[in-house]
Amino acid sequence: MSNEKADAPFAYHGLDRVFHEKARLGIVSSLVTQAKGLAFSELKALVGLTDGNLSRHLQVLEEAGFIAIQKGFEGKRPVTHCTLTALGRNQFLDYLDVLEEVLRTASVAREVTPDSIP
Amino acid sequence: MSNEKADAPFAYHGLDRVFHEKARLGIVSSLVTQAKGLAFSELKALVGLTDGNLSRHLQVLEEAGFIAIQKGFEGKRPVTHCTLTALGRNQFLDYLDVLEEVLRTASVAREVTPDSIP
Repeated sequence: MSNEKADAPFAYHGLDRVFHEKARLGIVSSLVTQAKGLAFSELKALVGLTDGNLSRHLQVLEEAGFIAIQKGFEGKRPVTHCTLTALGRNQFLDYLDVLEEVLRTASVAREVTPDSIP
Repeated sequence: MSNEKADAPFAYHGLDRVFHEKARLGIVSSLVTQAKGLAFSELKALVGLTDGNLSRHLQVLEEAGFIAIQKGFEGKRPVTHCTLTALGRNQFLDYLDVLEEVLRTASVAREVTPDSIP
């Protein structure tokens, strides 16, 4: 990848792959407005993933330092609780800035008449 | 994946993986406003990929029917020319709609004060 250029206008280097993956984008979007975080079961309902897939993506986010996972109990029932870290929040806001730029650039396309497309 | 739910609000099923991959997002964003398409070398400069990576991603887009690739000559020099198809354009505009929804939902996060985040 050493030949790939950092200054190419459509390289979108700011689209961090940790956030840009569809399932993780759903997870972090779910968490970002929840200061107290969400239980695993709540997250699961919001993002529509299987237990296994949700666990796998949460692990990627935890390893990046973007979320914190606490295992505890509610009464006798084991509960896994997930919160976005300050790092995760800040990096995600940066990611959203790049996403906005992508949309701004591409939305010019709406003004191009379909007739001019082969 | 049969246990994954279609109606989960943060599942973002509309984020077509063909477009959502970072490099391909750059390629299609480059092409979407170019009714006459772009030469391989022009695309390469815009997206900052190596020849091999650019070829690989163009192939994925061509197999999806989203771009057309014409090989020809400019004088004696072989030229590969890429254009977005009508299908590719329409599907990409749908993808942008979902991306806008992601941004609308997540941008509420900007109004949450960092102090309220652990």
